[in-house]
Amino acid sequence: MKTLTVVKIGGNVIDNPKALESFVDDFSRLPSPKILVHGGGKLATRLCERLDIPVQMIEGRRVTDKETLDVATMVYAGLVNKKLVAKLQQRGCNAIGLSGADLCLLPAVKRSSVPVDYGYVGDIITDNVNTGALSSLLDMGAVPVFCALSYDGNGTLLNSNADGVASALAVAMSARQAVDLVYCFELPGVMRDISDSESWIPEINENSYARLREEGIVQKGMIPKIDNAFAALRQGVRCVVIKSSADIAAKRGTIIRIH
Amino acid sequence: MKTLTVVKIGGNVIDNPKALESFVDDFSRLPSPKILVHGGGKLATRLCERLDIPVQMIEGRRVTDKETLDVATMVYAGLVNKKLVAKLQQRGCNAIGLSGADLCLLPAVKRSSVPVDYGYVGDIITDNVNTGALSSLLDMGAVPVFCALSYDGNGTLLNSNADGVASALAVAMSARQAVDLVYCFELPGVMRDISDSESWIPEINENSYARLREEGIVQKGMIPKIDNAFAALRQGVRCVVIKSSADIAAKRGTIIRIH
Repeated sequence: MKTLTVVKIGGNVIDNPKALESFVDDFSRLPSPKILVHGGGKLATRLCERLDIPVQMIEGRRVTDKETLDVATMVYAGLVNKKLVAKLQQRGCNAIGLSGADLCLLPAVKRSSVPVDYGYVGDIITDNVNTGALSSLLDMGAVPVFCALSYDGNGTLLNSNADGVASALAVAMSARQAVDLVYCFELPGVMRDISDSESWIPEINENSYARLREEGIVQKGMIPKIDNAFAALRQGVRCVVIKSSADIAAKRGTIIRIH
Repeated sequence: MKTLTVVKIGGNVIDNPKALESFVDDFSRLPSPKILVHGGGKLATRLCERLDIPVQMIEGRRVTDKETLDVATMVYAGLVNKKLVAKLQQRGCNAIGLSGADLCLLPAVKRSSVPVDYGYVGDIITDNVNTGALSSLLDMGAVPVFCALSYDGNGTLLNSNADGVASALAVAMSARQAVDLVYCFELPGVMRDISDSESWIPEINENSYARLREEGIVQKGMIPKIDNAFAALRQGVRCVVIKSSADIAAKRGTIIRIH
């Protein structure tokens, strides 16, 4: 069975029309089977502002109330997802746009309101990902395109983290076939020196990761990303790569390995 | 092969939470294979108003400019479609939400800007409906839920009429299996007397239709609906029924037959 590639793109690609065009060109050319997971970008925030929906933050994280969930559903599952699908179809890539509720693909549990109530936010139950339906879609030659909305099994969509969706899909599908997980972002990889675009680190394993953290080279937002990558590897994902969305076909990027 | 049922619901059901709950209950219980097509309701108009997007009308019909198309994509393919999918999944109905761009299911041609430019409005090319992919989804046990957005094949979604989407799907799938087409609306069927809820006409054929028009019993918005029904029947659809969305499981309703 062929290796499945799960690619995650962040909001920065969605927000940049030129980067997006270049990305869909590259992604269309990647061999199948493949899955795309996308973040939402700033469109949801901008729509909330235009609709005078107040942004509530608790400890630096956004609260998803009922109105914000509706905006997320409109922007992520509607505008962003279907525009991506249309652009991919234009390039001969047989995309199908999906949320977690469709075919009950991404079952999740609403995060506890104690100690902090983040509202309609869900953590995906990786063991319950509907891998059977996903495999059927892939067997049809379809290219699933997921927004980061999961499903509580009881009639309600939940806002989820796009990195987490990509990782849950990759881990769940690893029970069926070899899976490579690619996190795309705005840099060529994990960088030694952010001001030197050639300083990407080709490979990180658990030993070198500990060292890079001690040295302060890996810090802030990169730490949960790499932690997630190691968690996915420990749960059966064959390979995790962190690379530039402008460069998914090229060899640059940081490969994460356990050993 | 089992008979496929294509059910279309209009915006009035979408706009009425109680009617919607009752409809999804009934639709979930209908035997598969089945397809749901939904209109958008007043949500798109309301969102346009909140966003100060002017409504442009030409000869009583709305113009879909770029901003209006984005709103339609958010509301129809996002909010309305995914809420329906979540509600159906809650009832054990294995729904998958779709636009015409997904799997290139509903190819359409942008309506000519001469003599009147309605903007991003598309007429579905019935012969090009991707019946192969649709059959694969139905074979998986999936229940496709379509919003009325079609696809120009060149990266752009197009606003289409939900009655037309339902009819195009029914006609196209008729080449593969027997198809029943059900148009749901707010009345028990085509009415002799709008003030008498028991006056629905059980059956209309071409002869009785001519008579009903002469007598002025069938008029206004009902005329294109019945014309479409006859067109679908002439193109292979087995049976067309016009009935109440509150009553899809029951026997009430108007059956349209050619003879």
